[in-house]
Amino acid sequence: MIVLGVDPGSLYTGYGILRTQNMSPEVLACGAIENRSTTAMPERLKLIFQTLSRLIETFSPDELAIETAFYGKNAQSALKLGQARGVSILAAVVKGIPTHEYSPREVKKAVVGNGTASKEQVQAMMRTILRLKRVPRHFDTTDALAVAVCHLQSRQPRRRSAGASWKSFLATHPEKIIISSQR
Amino acid sequence: MIVLGVDPGSLYTGYGILRTQNMSPEVLACGAIENRSTTAMPERLKLIFQTLSRLIETFSPDELAIETAFYGKNAQSALKLGQARGVSILAAVVKGIPTHEYSPREVKKAVVGNGTASKEQVQAMMRTILRLKRVPRHFDTTDALAVAVCHLQSRQPRRRSAGASWKSFLATHPEKIIISSQR
Repeated sequence: MIVLGVDPGSLYTGYGILRTQNMSPEVLACGAIENRSTTAMPERLKLIFQTLSRLIETFSPDELAIETAFYGKNAQSALKLGQARGVSILAAVVKGIPTHEYSPREVKKAVVGNGTASKEQVQAMMRTILRLKRVPRHFDTTDALAVAVCHLQSRQPRRRSAGASWKSFLATHPEKIIISSQR
Repeated sequence: MIVLGVDPGSLYTGYGILRTQNMSPEVLACGAIENRSTTAMPERLKLIFQTLSRLIETFSPDELAIETAFYGKNAQSALKLGQARGVSILAAVVKGIPTHEYSPREVKKAVVGNGTASKEQVQAMMRTILRLKRVPRHFDTTDALAVAVCHLQSRQPRRRSAGASWKSFLATHPEKIIISSQR
């Protein structure tokens, strides 16, 4: 299965495309769609939509994974985020790709094992789990990869039914425990 | 000039397409894109985008006019509104149609002459100015027509340079004064 993870924003929209290979996810592409603060909003939305549409055409993901929005922000921030989020979801739905949402807490819990983990912790864990050669420039990229990983985990019923999916993952990947405890 | 006015919302998105004929705008189409509250958000966004895209293909508007969002709402409402707004703006920008924004106050001031006018007053004025045979079912439709009228007014520099554009409009349309004062 191929999953497109997206962390939308009106300035930076992170994306990460993962393919499951046995137990281990493989990164097909990841990065951030960068808009300038001087660019008008309609043009920003167009860039987000068109870039995600091209990625979908290139990699044919089966599903989109996206974080539910953070409601703590003020209404003006939420409106801007909503616009970027709307065109991101649209890029998938017009191509018949289903969308799955996860709360930031669910994503952090799935990838770090702690619902209140920092962006740095998520980034470090993504680098390890996905064997990234370089640290992505933006947290938006690692956040997008993280929501894709979270979705892949939730899509593995066998591991889920065995209970404690994160624990069983670490049990089969002892090297992750060492790196995690170094932080 | 043809203007598409949009009043976006995740449940109802109003639209109104106006063509200027001398001083008087003519309604080419108006209505509301109706979503069900039970429909998932991705499908709602798709319906809004695809319906507006079809309207744009059919009527070839030169410009999109849309209200700036009402920031007084809470963050969760603003996020939902942002999503609907994002895909509405996108429908125009992917076809190279420029977007113009007006605050609710500007729209009300332009069409009723009072920045704090009610939705009912806006509706009554739209019915009169645009000679609508029936009152549209949703305020979203008359709000969309109103933002299009507001944009057309702002696009008439001769009337503007003469000062007091609304007053001069009423001066050339005395019948509006009578109807307005009946309310």
